[in-house]
Amino acid sequence: MAPKRQRTASAGSAAWTTNLTSISPNKILVRGYRLDDLMGKVSFGDVTYLLLTGELPSPNISRLVEAMLISFIDHGATPPSTLAALNTVTTGAGIRGAVAAGVLGFGRYHGGTALACRALLDKGLDIVRSGRSMADAAAQLVQQLVDTDDLPPPGFGHRYHTIDPRATRLLQIAYELEADHNYTQMLRALETAMTRHEALKGQQLGVNIDGAISAVCGNLGLPPDVADALLIISRVPGLTAHVLEEQRRESPMRAIDPGKHSYDGPSERRLPEGRK
Amino acid sequence: MAPKRQRTASAGSAAWTTNLTSISPNKILVRGYRLDDLMGKVSFGDVTYLLLTGELPSPNISRLVEAMLISFIDHGATPPSTLAALNTVTTGAGIRGAVAAGVLGFGRYHGGTALACRALLDKGLDIVRSGRSMADAAAQLVQQLVDTDDLPPPGFGHRYHTIDPRATRLLQIAYELEADHNYTQMLRALETAMTRHEALKGQQLGVNIDGAISAVCGNLGLPPDVADALLIISRVPGLTAHVLEEQRRESPMRAIDPGKHSYDGPSERRLPEGRK
Amino acid sequence: MAPKRQRTASAGSAAWTTNLTSISPNKILVRGYRLDDLMGKVSFGDVTYLLLTGELPSPNISRLVEAMLISFIDHGATPPSTLAALNTVTTGAGIRGAVAAGVLGFGRYHGGTALACRALLDKGLDIVRSGRSMADAAAQLVQQLVDTDDLPPPGFGHRYHTIDPRATRLLQIAYELEADHNYTQMLRALETAMTRHEALKGQQLGVNIDGAISAVCGNLGLPPDVADALLIISRVPGLTAHVLEEQRRESPMRAIDPGKHSYDGPSERRLPEGRK
Amino acid sequence: MAPKRQRTASAGSAAWTTNLTSISPNKILVRGYRLDDLMGKVSFGDVTYLLLTGELPSPNISRLVEAMLISFIDHGATPPSTLAALNTVTTGAGIRGAVAAGVLGFGRYHGGTALACRALLDKGLDIVRSGRSMADAAAQLVQQLVDTDDLPPPGFGHRYHTIDPRATRLLQIAYELEADHNYTQMLRALETAMTRHEALKGQQLGVNIDGAISAVCGNLGLPPDVADALLIISRVPGLTAHVLEEQRRESPMRAIDPGKHSYDGPSERRLPEGRK
Repeated sequence: MAPKRQRTASAGSAAWTTNLTSISPNKILVRGYRLDDLMGKVSFGDVTYLLLTGELPSPNISRLVEAMLISFIDHGATPPSTLAALNTVTTGAGIRGAVAAGVLGFGRYHGGTALACRALLDKGLDIVRSGRSMADAAAQLVQQLVDTDDLPPPGFGHRYHTIDPRATRLLQIAYELEADHNYTQMLRALETAMTRHEALKGQQLGVNIDGAISAVCGNLGLPPDVADALLIISRVPGLTAHVLEEQRRESPMRAIDPGKHSYDGPSERRLPEGRK
Repeated sequence: MAPKRQRTASAGSAAWTTNLTSISPNKILVRGYRLDDLMGKVSFGDVTYLLLTGELPSPNISRLVEAMLISFIDHGATPPSTLAALNTVTTGAGIRGAVAAGVLGFGRYHGGTALACRALLDKGLDIVRSGRSMADAAAQLVQQLVDTDDLPPPGFGHRYHTIDPRATRLLQIAYELEADHNYTQMLRALETAMTRHEALKGQQLGVNIDGAISAVCGNLGLPPDVADALLIISRVPGLTAHVLEEQRRESPMRAIDPGKHSYDGPSERRLPEGRK
Repeated sequence: MAPKRQRTASAGSAAWTTNLTSISPNKILVRGYRLDDLMGKVSFGDVTYLLLTGELPSPNISRLVEAMLISFIDHGATPPSTLAALNTVTTGAGIRGAVAAGVLGFGRYHGGTALACRALLDKGLDIVRSGRSMADAAAQLVQQLVDTDDLPPPGFGHRYHTIDPRATRLLQIAYELEADHNYTQMLRALETAMTRHEALKGQQLGVNIDGAISAVCGNLGLPPDVADALLIISRVPGLTAHVLEEQRRESPMRAIDPGKHSYDGPSERRLPEGRK
Repeated sequence: MAPKRQRTASAGSAAWTTNLTSISPNKILVRGYRLDDLMGKVSFGDVTYLLLTGELPSPNISRLVEAMLISFIDHGATPPSTLAALNTVTTGAGIRGAVAAGVLGFGRYHGGTALACRALLDKGLDIVRSGRSMADAAAQLVQQLVDTDDLPPPGFGHRYHTIDPRATRLLQIAYELEADHNYTQMLRALETAMTRHEALKGQQLGVNIDGAISAVCGNLGLPPDVADALLIISRVPGLTAHVLEEQRRESPMRAIDPGKHSYDGPSERRLPEGRK
């Protein structure tokens, strides 16, 4: 629950603290580690995790977090958040303004669905805690969703993909790294229950990347707001790349029709040998 | 130079292209690589670099880019951009709005100095190309800066640090990874020339992190706007962590005095054994 | 209730309409009126009302709307939204970025309280519709607020003012212009009930400007989101003036302590003769 | 010129002042006037002018400023700034985020052209001050613009209108209110010179609203940044109205093609009798 609005008699400023980063002359500590020690020894994703959770990830969790951050890094020119950034930069606004506009475009129907999915998974796990099996809990939840016509549920289905390749891969990596726990299990139980439900025959309601990230973050014990934060962080490089591309390739003040764009980059290619 | 404002007879939308990410049903290619292939094999920093430059970094460049991204990831509660984010979130605005406000706070005196430093380094390297030595070129530039009272130059000096530990470390890593080329050399030449200049005796004008990042990006052949983009991307995790902390620890609508904060996180500690 | 997320089989764009402004060559119609006809004949506040509601206000409503817009136009350097804008512009960000940061700082504890107050008033009026008197309904609501420790209620009390002069004046103008209907009556009934409640003795819970605006908008039949929009619009000139002042008067990258500012403008003065 | 980056030895916060609004318990003074006195006596546009310039406008200037604010209040769904706001709100972002995204979309090719036009007019007036006639100065400037292919100049030509009805009307009002001075004269001189230039035959380079606002602000002696600020302020109601309309009428996450929209509001209608 949100704290109540403060209304002290005085409106003055009070002392306050932060436990993130300590700044003293010529020394910067992030969560206790010297920033210059972290440089060269761990990854940017690791320090992101450190800032958000207080600890460096174990090697397995590090790999999982990197994979999660990559999975959401860009989705081409189709998301409204990217289009908000493009419409901003075409006016001659700078990189900062355009990236900020893109970040603002992660409303509750866009990046925000991961939060809603987490709530759904928690609801399912509550039922399990009351003594039901995963499958039963999932079937019960799906029946409710059908009854209230609340479909697709957050974390399932996609405008473009029938099988979201990012979700499949992220769940696989979680499995390989032994991070396949209750949240991802509930996610798959829900997917299965939807496949089996009479009323949902033929509908494409596979797990999407928002759902997979939401569940993996649940497995890792990350609070919902940290999961939400990771989604925002992960898309910023993609937004920024689109903004730079618009500045370089297009005329200012153009009318941007998302239906009229195509891809003219490299054809499909293999990863260089020897990448991890 | 910026393209001219478009004024076609018709104001209709035209076909356009992107070379970043291709979206087709169940397949996402980033610069030609399957996104699900990248997941688990490379780092988030690598895919950021891929999006911004078109190619995956070599292992050495990968380590350098990770170090660069880490170096700027947070600077505590002191930067105005962080304070803009905190003042936004204390009103009950969500994460997105507060992070966006933080991104907007990278004006030309804040993150923007890296761009100005790059221009300064380019000016120095132009003099070198005309036949002068690094040291001579640097001395000439410093004399100009003193004459026009344009001090401190962008990339040098810091409000809190006399020796910026991030800059020292980043330049060291660049050296170790054999990425110490003309831009970092010019940066150090300028630092030396300032130390030697009569009029700057006793002034603390060491290389700061903006300068080090700017020079390293120059060495890597990254265009100035890509270097600028990397700075923005790198600070987003820090901004986000401050926003979450404010939501959790503080009362809404508080008056935020940057002079009244202190650090209450872990004391200095060593990196866990075995980190790379 | 918000509409459900659209998931059409195709993700293409569809035809859509706007009923705000028609653009044809050399002719601009706002809600059917020629924009060049409106210029010089009505006020900016009138066209704002026209855009938001579909009709021009009557002369009385016009005066009330202007008074409302003025009442919230600025509150000095104390609000966090203003501080967000100042912290943004001190970095060298432009006017647009700083004003946008300010707009983002109208979270639910700041400008957003008008929405919460409207809900409270609606709750009171619902009780009245069930047959109770205003005073009874208000007493019942206040008892609930005390029981749940939900104090101060949205629309009442202020960090700086015990009697909010803007609220007093706006309610007076509404009365003079014969726009004192059920919402403002319920607002005053709540204020009275709080004065009389044993547990709230000595507390300063007078109507504040958020409450007064909320109630006046209710009287005018404006939907809550339009009232919310009016609040945002009304503060933009104030935010902008602070941003320009910061650019002109202060050094970049300064540490902004809200407790250390004072006013150095003109002393109190009378309105020029003959203003309406 | 922008002030230099501050680098004091101490990074502490210093005392500072504002001359905009004084806040003391139960009393708010805007530029010395009690805010509750202004309410009901002057217009929102007047207090906007008061905040930005320090004084209330005379009745004639008041009418001119209102007309200016109205002239730029909305331009339908076609501007990229409006499309940025729509793309943001379709994701389920709130009003604040979407309006902020819209404000960010006033880059230098969009609202920013008024600044560039002001610089052009100043250049022309400088030539006049050196002893040339308006017509000669304008002809000389136009020849330069043609030589450097810097066409259309800022303030002239429009994507949709060959004759911008807002510009025509604003200049007419300025004339009627005896505010037709050197800047508007130079603006018209430039328009005439372009009509007469051989190389520009048949091109539609009439004065647009950015140009008219820029010149009228020049006549009023408003600094360029105040003129720029007025443009931003004036469009906020329009942006907000589009955002509310999107929330009410459209499905979330829609693909927004600016070429597929049409107007379905009231047909052209006359102003009610008796409006001023």
